[in-house]
Parts: sequence; structure tokens; C-alpha cells
Amino acid sequence: MSEGFEWSRAVEFYETDLAGIVHFSNFYRWMESAEHAFLRSHGIALHQGGVGWPRVNASADFKKPVRFGDLVRVRVSVAEVKTRSVRYCFEFRVNGDDLLHATGEMTSVCVDLETMKAVEIPPEVRQSLS
Amino acid sequence: MSEGFEWSRAVEFYETDLAGIVHFSNFYRWMESAEHAFLRSHGIALHQGGVGWPRVNASADFKKPVRFGDLVRVRVSVAEVKTRSVRYCFEFRVNGDDLLHATGEMTSVCVDLETMKAVEIPPEVRQSLS
Amino acid sequence: MSEGFEWSRAVEFYETDLAGIVHFSNFYRWMESAEHAFLRSHGIALHQGGVGWPRVNASADFKKPVRFGDLVRVRVSVAEVKTRSVRYCFEFRVNGDDLLHATGEMTSVCVDLETMKAVEIPPEVRQSLS
Amino acid sequence: MSEGFEWSRAVEFYETDLAGIVHFSNFYRWMESAEHAFLRSHGIALHQGGVGWPRVNASADFKKPVRFGDLVRVRVSVAEVKTRSVRYCFEFRVNGDDLLHATGEMTSVCVDLETMKAVEIPPEVRQSLS
Repeated sequence: MSEGFEWSRAVEFYETDLAGIVHFSNFYRWMESAEHAFLRSHGIALHQGGVGWPRVNASADFKKPVRFGDLVRVRVSVAEVKTRSVRYCFEFRVNGDDLLHATGEMTSVCVDLETMKAVEIPPEVRQSLS
Repeated sequence: MSEGFEWSRAVEFYETDLAGIVHFSNFYRWMESAEHAFLRSHGIALHQGGVGWPRVNASADFKKPVRFGDLVRVRVSVAEVKTRSVRYCFEFRVNGDDLLHATGEMTSVCVDLETMKAVEIPPEVRQSLS
Repeated sequence: MSEGFEWSRAVEFYETDLAGIVHFSNFYRWMESAEHAFLRSHGIALHQGGVGWPRVNASADFKKPVRFGDLVRVRVSVAEVKTRSVRYCFEFRVNGDDLLHATGEMTSVCVDLETMKAVEIPPEVRQSLS
Repeated sequence: MSEGFEWSRAVEFYETDLAGIVHFSNFYRWMESAEHAFLRSHGIALHQGGVGWPRVNASADFKKPVRFGDLVRVRVSVAEVKTRSVRYCFEFRVNGDDLLHATGEMTSVCVDLETMKAVEIPPEVRQSLS
């Protein structure tokens, strides 16, 4: 995938575990960070229009370890925009390499922040996502 | 599911986020804690036989929020034992309720701790898992 | 110190770092968990009387590493109750040993949850703490 | 303090808690990130000369909350270089403001990575620190 938005950050010492590599739970946190940066890059504020975006699903496949000292790069793309949800795909690489270290998917549902019930994605947000 | 192993722990304040609920990344950490407790309950030490169990995949579906003050209960079952990997299923409930708050799956691969290459699950571990 | 309240928990894999020991940031999280358990054990709900307890200071001295597989035991004692704050002391030990692995201190201030301003500790809470 | 090294990073959603602000344990993680970035900026690799830098003490005073959406800026300065340890001071600010949100201190001890015993700071590291 050559297009799409990329978020990157230096891997921190506290993100490693005793196996000497990044603990797998951090890939889900990085997906969230990349999602939020992606929304900002499309001019969408996280709680714009009185809605929030809780996850209903997140998965990841781990192919190669990521290590302390690496710059982790997370490529975000929108796989599908439904009436009330968005599905994102993520590709994890490190430093200047093109090797895939992990891939992920996450589905965020548009909810009314008052009621926390799923609602239709506001038109202006939908337009920015597409 | 009435059988299987259950791990539980009080939800901690630091596991919540500003949405007022447990951050979704913690469900993956709880899967790991439950997996390790499950192995111990079957008499399997984590690095027994010179092998380790890195994840190659983990996914979760989030149905209802878990909150500070809840006792989270994670039911673990072995979905499949392959030659070199184990796939676990997880069910998340809270307190005394039977409601499913989340479900998860995780595949851990048996690797030689020296080479970090995938190897066959040692027979005595396989026997304990089945 | 033979008196006081003790909170304990199995150290989790995700709490370690690549040095092979528990990452120091977790000691502060354990202080919070122990503080909350201490309050509950004294019949005090965390937000009882419309007040909260943000920290204004926390410090720790690290003497010996804590490792995955250890049961960490945190002894809590109230060092001082002032008009609007409580200072706690913490002692960290592991398993059945009496060796001190770390010590800590934390000062929590009583704030009105509406205004987030420091207020006097409610009399019934003060009585339970003393 | 107008001099010194500054490390900064956008505050992430997963660093907040249900009080709606950054959880205090993250300030200790940020101290570590800032310490590591400071060492790199002085041409010191973390494990250069076969030594590591475990903490023996870390403390922080919290004055104002830090929030999701803030850019946290951590100013690092060396307060004292002893024979076998370094004491750092930290100042936490957000965005373009000069207001102090928190201050911290941390003492890291130079240890031989083989024996994990405290040793004298290698001369070339000492020179870079001063």
C-alpha cells in the first residue's frame, strides 16, 4: 500500500517486556494513536458533532518483533465506512524498512456522547473520511 | 460456556481512560494474564522445556464497557492445539453477572527460546493442554 | 513494621521491561492500587462525600528488583492526616520474604469533585483514616 | 530555568484516566523518555561502555493536570553527577505555556550490565554529562 496516512513514534523503553521486544498490547495503543492522528489530519476533531468513537473490534497479526530504539511507523487506511461505523486497516513498519512487522484492523462505532448509543456518522465527518 | 478456567482481578483505576471506562488495550493484557494463569493451572511453566509462547494474533470484540470497581472475570478455553501453536478463546464477564462484556481470541506459537524459531510443542506440554 | 494494611498481587508479564525486571513506573500504579484497597478496607468509598483524592506528590526508592512470577506485597500506612491531605507510606516486599524491595510515599489531597478545589477531609472519612 | 534539553510528545488518549486527566504514573514514564532522549542528545548510547542506568529513586510533584490533546514538554537538567550516579531534574509544561504543571527528580545509578553492581561512571560518559 503506497498511499494513506502514516503516524510514527520512537519506541520507548517502558513499552518493552522481558522477552526484550515490544509488548504486543502496545500495538493496539499505537493503532489508537494513529487513528486519532489520522482523524486530525483529515480535519476531524475526536468528539466533533457530539459523537465519540469507541471500538467494537480490534485485531492484530504479529510478524516480526519491534524493538526499543526503533522508530515505529503505522500506516492507516480506511477500509470501509458504514452508516454508523468505520473500519481501519493498519500496517506496522520500523525505521526506513519496507518489511511488514505487523498488521491490524479496528472498527470504531459512531456514538452519541450523551446516550452512548450508536448513531449515523455526521455528514461532514463522513465526507472527510471518504 | 460452563467449563474452562477462569482468571479474575479487580479493575484498577489506572486501567480506565477519560471516557470513564476501561481502555480497550487492557483486554489484551488480561488475555495474557489469563493465558499464563491457565498454563500454571495445568502444571505448565511459561518457559518449560526451553520454549516460549509469543503471540502471532490477538483479536477482541467489545460488547459492553467494563468499569473501575468491577471484578473482571476472564474465562479461558483452548480452541485448537496445532503442531506448533495454540489458539485460545476468551470470554469477559464482570462481577456475578453472566452477561458477555467482550470476547477474544489469541494464537500463541511455540518457539525455541534460543533461536526464537517455531518448534513443535513438547509432548508433555501438549498432553497437559488437551 | 508489623502493623498496617497489605495489598498483594501476582506480577504480570506486561509489567516487565527488557532489563528483565518490573518497570519502575508500576510501583506508582501499585501504590495507587494499595491506597484504594486500603480505603475500601477502612470502609471509605473512593468518591465518598463528593470528594476525590488526586496526588500532589509521589516518590519511591528502589532497592531490589521485582520480577515476573513474584507476588508483590505492598504494605500501606497512614503517615500523616492533615486538614486537606493524607500522606501514605508504602513498603514493597515479594513472596514470603521480609526483605524490603522498595519504599514509597504519596500525598493525596481531598478535593471537591465539582470544583476540583482542595477542601477539608469530611469528618467521617477523617475518623476512618485515624 | 531557561537552559537544558527539552523532550516533547503529544499526550495520548490511553494515558488518561476516568478523572479526565493524564494518570500520574505517566509522568515517571515521560521522565524516562526524556532522560533517554537527553542521553542521546549528548552522544551517549543507553548501554554504552557495558553499563546500564537503573533508577534508585524517582519523585514528582503534581501542580496542574495535563490533558489529552496537550503537547507535554519535559525539560531535563543534570542536578548532580556523583561517582556512580546521576541525579536529574525535570520540569513539565504543556503547549506554548510557561506554567509549571509538574516537577520531578530521578537518580540513575551506573551499573555493570554483567554483574548489575554499581560501578564508576565511564570517563567519556561523565565528560559528556558535565
